[in-house]
Amino acid sequence: MKSKFIVIEGLEGAGKTTARDALVAELQRHGITDLVFTREPGGTPLAEKLRELIKQGIDDEVISDRAELLMLYAARVQLVENVIKPALARGCWVIGDRHDLSSQAYQGGGRCMDSALMTTLRQAVLGDFTPDLTLYLDVTPETGLQRARARGALDRIEQESLNFFHRTRERYLALAAADADIRTIDAMQPLEAVSADIRRTLAQWLKEQQ
Amino acid sequence: MKSKFIVIEGLEGAGKTTARDALVAELQRHGITDLVFTREPGGTPLAEKLRELIKQGIDDEVISDRAELLMLYAARVQLVENVIKPALARGCWVIGDRHDLSSQAYQGGGRCMDSALMTTLRQAVLGDFTPDLTLYLDVTPETGLQRARARGALDRIEQESLNFFHRTRERYLALAAADADIRTIDAMQPLEAVSADIRRTLAQWLKEQQ
Repeated sequence: MKSKFIVIEGLEGAGKTTARDALVAELQRHGITDLVFTREPGGTPLAEKLRELIKQGIDDEVISDRAELLMLYAARVQLVENVIKPALARGCWVIGDRHDLSSQAYQGGGRCMDSALMTTLRQAVLGDFTPDLTLYLDVTPETGLQRARARGALDRIEQESLNFFHRTRERYLALAAADADIRTIDAMQPLEAVSADIRRTLAQWLKEQQ
Repeated sequence: MKSKFIVIEGLEGAGKTTARDALVAELQRHGITDLVFTREPGGTPLAEKLRELIKQGIDDEVISDRAELLMLYAARVQLVENVIKPALARGCWVIGDRHDLSSQAYQGGGRCMDSALMTTLRQAVLGDFTPDLTLYLDVTPETGLQRARARGALDRIEQESLNFFHRTRERYLALAAADADIRTIDAMQPLEAVSADIRRTLAQWLKEQQ
């Protein structure tokens, strides 16, 4: 089977790390072991610098929503061109911790950014490049943030209002409902049940690809 | 007179620093002394970090033209919103070492980037905000680079090919010819003649504003 780009998406505390472990286990069961892992924003030296600036800010400077969006897409160009596309071309499967859907949900939904600007940026940065499969882990903001808080201090984005995360989740759900390449996983369930759903969803999807 | 935003533009080695000194001297002669100086990319903590990444790169990572462009505009949002507009609102005059015209010339002309993308970015980041006056210091790439080299090591952008700078200069000249708010200064002349031209051009422009 041709190498694929699979992305895990969801709010903070949705359980993306556990989901990745389940995904990897299921891929291995199917004999798919040449994997490259990416995270966004990040994944190249420049993109990781941008991630740090986006997540931590600098000297208490107010970061405008537009600057944040532009830095996210700058990081995405670098990752896609320098890491993801070359890995796929080598025959590796790429497992992404977030990708463009995060920008659509957080910046488009959460921050209510102009959709024409977002479409232009997405088109300029990605063209026709899209993940083969996205697993969207759906949790309520209340549950997700409770889990994220239990992990430690919250970063600049995680400190947004609950309304921000409600708008983000609604956008995630709307985008997932409109796109057959996005599969929604109920991540409010106990971890074992989420993992089982992911393995079942992936196995089904792999069968569809044959 | 209402506070103004005046920008100095030109290729590397055009003599922007000398031009600024002449500009400041002439403004002072007219009693305009509340000045704020900016440079682009840069001028806020975040924008300076982006400047460093754009100019020096990191770990020999190839920086895509699109990532460079997005970082330039991210830095520009921060500078305009956090520094330039507040300074003008306080009644200060702002003297900019480069602004949007540089992106139009270097990225649009030099790198031949898509003009629709550039227009969308400019509109999203600046809207109707434009400098009141731009002084474009015109030099040939050969002369400019010779002067820049005499100053020391060249950065990532300064190491571009001579053709890149020829395309950049051509775009500068075309944009200057089409915009009455951009005045072209012959910066191939000896420094004293350039300074005199700048003072004369500024004095004339100030008279036009009354």
